[in-house]
Amino acid sequence: MTKKFEHEVEVHGHLIDSMILTKIFDVIMDLNGEFQVQEFKVGKRKKDESYAKLLIQASSQKHLDDILESVYREGATSKIQQHVMLKQAPKDMVMPDNFYSTTNNRTDIFHKGKWIKVENMMMDKCMVVKTNQVWCMPIREIKKGDMVVVGEKGIRVTPPERPREGVNLFQFMGSGSSSERPTQHIARKVASDIYKTKKEGGKIVLVGGPAIIHTGASDSVATLIRMGFIDCVLAGNALAVHDIEYATLGTSLGMNVRDGTLAVRGHRNHMQAINSVFKEGSIAKMVANKTLKKGIMYECVKRKVPFVLAGSLRDDGPLPDVITDMIAAQKKYKEILKDAKMVIMISTMLHSIATGNMLPADVKVIVVDINQPTVTKLMDRGTWQALGIVSDVGAFLPLVTQEIQKIAK
Amino acid sequence: MTKKFEHEVEVHGHLIDSMILTKIFDVIMDLNGEFQVQEFKVGKRKKDESYAKLLIQASSQKHLDDILESVYREGATSKIQQHVMLKQAPKDMVMPDNFYSTTNNRTDIFHKGKWIKVENMMMDKCMVVKTNQVWCMPIREIKKGDMVVVGEKGIRVTPPERPREGVNLFQFMGSGSSSERPTQHIARKVASDIYKTKKEGGKIVLVGGPAIIHTGASDSVATLIRMGFIDCVLAGNALAVHDIEYATLGTSLGMNVRDGTLAVRGHRNHMQAINSVFKEGSIAKMVANKTLKKGIMYECVKRKVPFVLAGSLRDDGPLPDVITDMIAAQKKYKEILKDAKMVIMISTMLHSIATGNMLPADVKVIVVDINQPTVTKLMDRGTWQALGIVSDVGAFLPLVTQEIQKIAK
Amino acid sequence: MTKKFEHEVEVHGHLIDSMILTKIFDVIMDLNGEFQVQEFKVGKRKKDESYAKLLIQASSQKHLDDILESVYREGATSKIQQHVMLKQAPKDMVMPDNFYSTTNNRTDIFHKGKWIKVENMMMDKCMVVKTNQVWCMPIREIKKGDMVVVGEKGIRVTPPERPREGVNLFQFMGSGSSSERPTQHIARKVASDIYKTKKEGGKIVLVGGPAIIHTGASDSVATLIRMGFIDCVLAGNALAVHDIEYATLGTSLGMNVRDGTLAVRGHRNHMQAINSVFKEGSIAKMVANKTLKKGIMYECVKRKVPFVLAGSLRDDGPLPDVITDMIAAQKKYKEILKDAKMVIMISTMLHSIATGNMLPADVKVIVVDINQPTVTKLMDRGTWQALGIVSDVGAFLPLVTQEIQKIAK
Amino acid sequence: MTKKFEHEVEVHGHLIDSMILTKIFDVIMDLNGEFQVQEFKVGKRKKDESYAKLLIQASSQKHLDDILESVYREGATSKIQQHVMLKQAPKDMVMPDNFYSTTNNRTDIFHKGKWIKVENMMMDKCMVVKTNQVWCMPIREIKKGDMVVVGEKGIRVTPPERPREGVNLFQFMGSGSSSERPTQHIARKVASDIYKTKKEGGKIVLVGGPAIIHTGASDSVATLIRMGFIDCVLAGNALAVHDIEYATLGTSLGMNVRDGTLAVRGHRNHMQAINSVFKEGSIAKMVANKTLKKGIMYECVKRKVPFVLAGSLRDDGPLPDVITDMIAAQKKYKEILKDAKMVIMISTMLHSIATGNMLPADVKVIVVDINQPTVTKLMDRGTWQALGIVSDVGAFLPLVTQEIQKIAK
Repeated sequence: MTKKFEHEVEVHGHLIDSMILTKIFDVIMDLNGEFQVQEFKVGKRKKDESYAKLLIQASSQKHLDDILESVYREGATSKIQQHVMLKQAPKDMVMPDNFYSTTNNRTDIFHKGKWIKVENMMMDKCMVVKTNQVWCMPIREIKKGDMVVVGEKGIRVTPPERPREGVNLFQFMGSGSSSERPTQHIARKVASDIYKTKKEGGKIVLVGGPAIIHTGASDSVATLIRMGFIDCVLAGNALAVHDIEYATLGTSLGMNVRDGTLAVRGHRNHMQAINSVFKEGSIAKMVANKTLKKGIMYECVKRKVPFVLAGSLRDDGPLPDVITDMIAAQKKYKEILKDAKMVIMISTMLHSIATGNMLPADVKVIVVDINQPTVTKLMDRGTWQALGIVSDVGAFLPLVTQEIQKIAK
Repeated sequence: MTKKFEHEVEVHGHLIDSMILTKIFDVIMDLNGEFQVQEFKVGKRKKDESYAKLLIQASSQKHLDDILESVYREGATSKIQQHVMLKQAPKDMVMPDNFYSTTNNRTDIFHKGKWIKVENMMMDKCMVVKTNQVWCMPIREIKKGDMVVVGEKGIRVTPPERPREGVNLFQFMGSGSSSERPTQHIARKVASDIYKTKKEGGKIVLVGGPAIIHTGASDSVATLIRMGFIDCVLAGNALAVHDIEYATLGTSLGMNVRDGTLAVRGHRNHMQAINSVFKEGSIAKMVANKTLKKGIMYECVKRKVPFVLAGSLRDDGPLPDVITDMIAAQKKYKEILKDAKMVIMISTMLHSIATGNMLPADVKVIVVDINQPTVTKLMDRGTWQALGIVSDVGAFLPLVTQEIQKIAK
Repeated sequence: MTKKFEHEVEVHGHLIDSMILTKIFDVIMDLNGEFQVQEFKVGKRKKDESYAKLLIQASSQKHLDDILESVYREGATSKIQQHVMLKQAPKDMVMPDNFYSTTNNRTDIFHKGKWIKVENMMMDKCMVVKTNQVWCMPIREIKKGDMVVVGEKGIRVTPPERPREGVNLFQFMGSGSSSERPTQHIARKVASDIYKTKKEGGKIVLVGGPAIIHTGASDSVATLIRMGFIDCVLAGNALAVHDIEYATLGTSLGMNVRDGTLAVRGHRNHMQAINSVFKEGSIAKMVANKTLKKGIMYECVKRKVPFVLAGSLRDDGPLPDVITDMIAAQKKYKEILKDAKMVIMISTMLHSIATGNMLPADVKVIVVDINQPTVTKLMDRGTWQALGIVSDVGAFLPLVTQEIQKIAK
Repeated sequence: MTKKFEHEVEVHGHLIDSMILTKIFDVIMDLNGEFQVQEFKVGKRKKDESYAKLLIQASSQKHLDDILESVYREGATSKIQQHVMLKQAPKDMVMPDNFYSTTNNRTDIFHKGKWIKVENMMMDKCMVVKTNQVWCMPIREIKKGDMVVVGEKGIRVTPPERPREGVNLFQFMGSGSSSERPTQHIARKVASDIYKTKKEGGKIVLVGGPAIIHTGASDSVATLIRMGFIDCVLAGNALAVHDIEYATLGTSLGMNVRDGTLAVRGHRNHMQAINSVFKEGSIAKMVANKTLKKGIMYECVKRKVPFVLAGSLRDDGPLPDVITDMIAAQKKYKEILKDAKMVIMISTMLHSIATGNMLPADVKVIVVDINQPTVTKLMDRGTWQALGIVSDVGAFLPLVTQEIQKIAK
C-alpha cells in the first residue's frame, strides 16, 4: 500500500467510554483501510475528554474518500479544515446527486469560515443552507434552487455521550431488552424519571396505540394527563375511537369492562363511538356538549393538551379529528415533537417508528410493548438514552401512575 | 321464566359441520336465554344440509330482542318474515342511531317483499338501500338522506361453510398457526393453490411489506409477477423504496446483496432511491427511461399489473407514486380487491389488516409472517378459507416460486 | 361404494354445544368415508343431552376400521357392544403392537361385560388391566405379561363438556390467547377463581419458572403460599436457586432488588446461593438453621407445602434437593398432581408441558407467560378448562395476590 | 476522597477495538470509583496491541477491593504481582466461602511464581488446583480437601478479541438478531463457514430440537451427517423419537410427509416409534436389525457419529438410549463438546442453553430459531463469535445443505 492516499483526522470526546473510537476503528477496518494513531490523549479522570489524531491510509483516492466519508459520520473531522460543499436543488422535491443524508446526531457544518449548528435535526433527511442557517429538511419540502449540502466534507457529527451518573436503570437494562427484569422496580424508576423530567420543566410526549384501552390502562393514562405529566399526545384513529367507546359505552372490544360480561351487539360499539363523534362534529364538541365526560381524549381537551391523530390505511371511520393526509400528519407530529425532552412510546409500532424518525438522538425515549421484537426494532436506532421495556401495558402503566401519585403527594 | 317473551327462529346449512348451530347455542346461553329445539332435520349424508327450528325464550322483551339480534348475526332468521327497517341519515357522514353494523359474511335483506343481496360486503360498515339495491358503505360516504338499515330485523347472514374436500392443507393447519409445520410441504401446497386459482381465472392480489426485500425474496416475487400469477400489488412506500434501492443500487438496508459486503455510504441508499424517483417524476417514468430495469415495481409497470402504494406516517419521502391521503388510498385498495379470489399477505401487519377489513369472508387468504402474534392477529377474523403460515419470508417465497415454476413447466 | 363395509355407531352428550358431533363428522370426511344420520335426538333445552346414531360406510374393511378407530376416539361407541381386546406385554418396557394410545379424556373400557373407568388418566400412555381395574401406564412401567389394551374396540372416550355458566372469563378469552385483553380485570377473575377453588377444598398446584424471581413476583407467590392458596409447587432447580439468592443476598441476576444498584461480584450470587444449600445439606435444613428466612422455598418448608424440583440439563449445581433422574422426577410430579383441581403454570415451558402431559382433560389450567407462542403451544392441547394469559408475570402476579388479599379480608 | 485507597492495574490487548477498556471504565464508574490513566500506549496500526496503566481510587479499602475484583474480571491485572489464594473445600460438594466463580473466558492463575492456564474453561464454576494444574470444576465434583481458588487476586482473564477480517457476516449481523436479513445469503455464508471449519479439521457439533423433524428439515440434517460435516449430535428424547417416527412410519406429528394427508391413528405414531426402539433394545440395534433405515439417528449410527440424548421432564418414553440422569447427561455433553470449533444450535432452548454453559467463549456458535426472544436469550452471553439467525428451520437448513453440496462438488 503506497502512502500517497492518506489523510489526517481528529476526534474529541469520551472516545473510549462512549465507544466513539471503537466505531471509528471498526469503520476503517471494515473497509480494509489502514491507520496510524499519531496522537492519543486519554482523559485522565472520568469526566475528562480524550483526543485522538489518526492518519488514515488507503489504496486509492476513491478508497480513501470512502473511508473518510465513513469516519466523518462517526464523529471524526478532517485535520485540515474543509468547507462544506453546496449544490442547488435542480427541481422542487429533487435533491442534487451526492446529497448528504443526515443522522439523528447533533451536526455542524463548516461554512464561510465558521461552524454552524444544523437546526431541527432528524435522521435520513438532507441539509439546506439559507442565509446563515442550516436546516434539516425532508425531500418533499425541497424547492428548486435550495442550496443543499453534498458530499461528506466540512461536516462535524457529535455522537451522543453515554450518561455517567453511577449505576442507573438505563445501564442495568443495557441496549438489550428482555422480559426477565423486575417489573415493579422498573415502573418505579420510570415514574421517578417522568416526575423529575416534568419538575425540571421538560416536555413529555406520549405516543400510544389502542392496546392502552384494550388492556385496561386507559384510566391510568387519563390520570397522568389530568395530573399534568403529559404535554402532548401523538396517536392514531384507533386510540381515540376505543377511548371514546370505553368512555361512552363502557366497553372495550365489546366487553363491559366493569363486570367482564359481553355487551349485547358489542361488536358495533366502536362503530357507534365513531358515529357519535361525527354527529357532534369533533371530539372537542363532544366534550363541550358533555357527551364525552372522561377518558384520554376528554382529559386532552379539558387540559388543552394538544393531540395529533394521524390516519392510517386500516382506520374505521376515521374520526373527523383524524388527519388523513400523511404529509400533513408528519408535519403536525414534528411540530409537537419540537423541544421534547422525553417521549414515551406505548404499544404502537407504526406511530413509534414514525416518531423515532423525527427525533434527535439526545431525546430520552421509553418504549413499552409486550412483543419483544417490536421493542428490539424500536431500540435498534436507539441511543444511550433509550429504554426498552417488555411488559404488559395493562399492568405496567397502572404501576407507573400509582408510583407518580405516591411521589406527587 | 314466563313464556310470553319468546320467538321462533330457523336456520339452514351445514349446521354441525360448520359449527353454525354451536355458535347459535353459545350466543343464547351466553346471554342467559333459554331455547327449545322444535325441529331438527340433520343432513343424512355429508353433502346434505341440515335444518333447525328453535323457540327462543327470554325473561323480558329487551332480553328477547338482545338474544334475537345476536342469533340473527350467526345465521338464524325469524320464522315470521320481517321487513328490514330503514332510516334516513340525518347528515352527511352521520349514520342514524341503531344503524346495523355489518359482518364480512354474505348478507341479504328482506325489503319490499323479497330478499336482496348486499353488494360489496365488508366488515364494520353500514348498509344503504338505493332504488332496489343494497350497498355496504363506510361512514364517510354516507350522504344526508341516505336510507340506512337499522336494527337487526329482516336481515339474513350466511356464515361461510367449511370446505369439504377430503384432507387438505387448510384443515391440517386448523385455525391455529404454528411454526412447527413442514415448511417445504406447505410451500408446495401454496404453490399448487396459486397455480390452480390462476388457471381457473381467479384474481390473485399480493399485499406485501418491505421485509420481502430485506430478506432477499424480491426476485421470487418479481418472477411470480412476470409469470402472470399476481394480478395486483397492494403495498406501501417502503416496499417500493427498498425494491428500487435493490434494483438500482444492489443493496438492501445498505448491504450489497451479491457478496454480503457493506456498501460505502450505504445508509443513504434508500434516500438516493427515493430521490431518483422524484428526479424522473414517477416509477413508470423510471421504467420508460430505463433507469429502473428489474424488480417488483419494474415488473408491475412492464406487465401492467396495477399497484397501489398507500402512505403511512413512517414514510421516508414518500415517493411521488404514493397516495398520501388515507381515504383515497382505502378507495383504491377497495377497487383493486373487487372480485379477488385469493389474497396473499406477506410480512405487513398494517396493509394486511387494512385489506382484511375490506374483504368478504369467502376470499381465500394466505398470511405469511415470521412473527406468530402477527399471524394470529390476522387470522382472528379468519374464516375456513384463511391459512396462517409462520415462516421466514426470505426462505419461504423462493420455495413457492420454485414450485410454481416446476408446475408451470 | 358398496354397502357391505358399514357399521353403526352412537354418541351421547352435548353434541352440538361441545362440538362433539362436528368432530365426528370431520373425521369421517377427512378419511373420505360416508355416513348416514339414522337418528338424531337433539336436547330440547340447554341442559338436555343429545343423541345420535350414525351408519358409517367405507370402501373396504380396512377403510371402515380406520374410520371407526378414529370416531371412537371422538366419543362415539359401537352400537353393537364390543369387548375390549387385551394382549400380553412381550417384555418389560415393551407394549404389544397395536397398543391403544390414550387421550387425556375420561375413558372407560368394556371388559367382562361391564364398563370400567380407567384410573389415572393421562395422554399418550397405554392401558393395563389388572384384576378388575384398568390403569393408564407409561411405557417404562410396563412389565412382561401385563395385559395391555390393543385396538380401538370396546373403548368409550368421554370428551370434555364445555362449561355452561353464562358469560364468563374463559369464554371471553376463547381458546385463543392475546395480549390485548384487560389485564386488571383478568387478574381479578383469576383471583376469584383461585379463591373459590380453594374455598371448595380444591387442590391448587403451582408450576413455576425462575422468571417469577427475575421479574420481581417472588414476594407475591410467597404470600399466596403463606395464605394457604397453593397446595404444592412443581418447579426446577432455577426457581429454587434464584429464590434463595433473592432471599439470602437480596439480588436477582446480580441486581439489588431494593434499590436497583448492581451488586459487587453479583454474577456469583446464584453460585453462592447454591453453595449455601450444599453447605447446610438441603433447603429444609437452611430453614431449620435459620439461614433461609423468607421466599417461596421458605414458605413451602414452613407451611409443609410439598415441592418437587425436577432437574434439567441446563442446571447450575443443581441443588441437593433437585431430583436429577427424570423418571423419578416424573413420578414425583404425577403423585403431586393427583386430584388437582387447578394448575397454575407460570413462565416455564418445560415444566408446564411436562405437567400438561400428566393431567386429565378436566383439570382447570391457567397459563401465564409474556411470550405468546409459548401460551399458544401450551393451550394447543387445551380443553374448555384452559385459560391462556399473555402478560408480564412481574406485574400480573402481584395484581392477583392483591385481589386475593382483598377478597380474603 | 483520600488518596490512600488506591491501586495500580494494567491491561493489554485490543483495548479499544474489542471494547475492553470501555468495559473497565464502565465498571469503575458504575461502582462510583475514580481513576487516572497513568499510561496509555495505543496500538499504532490495526494489528498492534494497546496497553494501559490505571490508578484506581476508592473511598475505602472495601470499596477499592470491590472495584478491583470487578476490573480483574474484565481483563485488568494488578501491577504488583499477586499470588492466587487457595482454600480447602470443607466437604464434598461444598466450596469454600469466597470461591472464585468463573467466566467462560480464557483464564490464568498466578501460582507458585508462574501463570498457569485453567483447563476446561466454563462459566459459573469454580477452579481447583491439583499438583501444578488448574481445573474448572462444577460444584458436584468438588471433593473435601480440594484446593479451590478464592477471592479475585492472582487471576488473569483474557477477554475474547473481536475477529478482524474485513467485512463479514458476523459483523453485519452484529450482536442483535433480526428476522429482516437476507436469508439465502446468510444460508450461503453459514454453509461456507461450516465447509471451511471442516476442511481445516475443526470439530462441528450439532445441538438440535424436534422442530427439525416437524418442519421437514430432517433429510437435510441427515445429509449433512452422511457427508461428514457433523461430528457429534447433542439432543434430547424428542428429536430421536420424531426422527424415528418419520423414518419408520413416514409421519411427523401424525401427518404423512409425502402427500400431506393425515395418517389414520397418526396420534399414536410417536408412541409406536418409542415402542419399536424398546422392542429392539436400542437405536443401534434397530439399525443393525434394519428396522431403522434412514434419518438423523440412522446416519449417526452408520457413520459412528456419537450422539447424546439427554432426558427431560417432558419426555414420552423416554427411549432406552436416553440418559435420564441430568448429572450424567451433563458429563456426556461436556465430553462431546471438548475441543469443538463450531456449535450449531437449532430450535432448542433447553439443550442450547445447557450447551452454552459448557462452552469456552472462543467457540464459534450459530443459533437458528424462528422465535426472536429465544435467539436473543441465547446470544446474551454471546461473544464476537456468536451468530443469531431468526429464520424458519424447515426452510433454512435445506438451503444450507444445498449450498454445502454445491461447494463440495
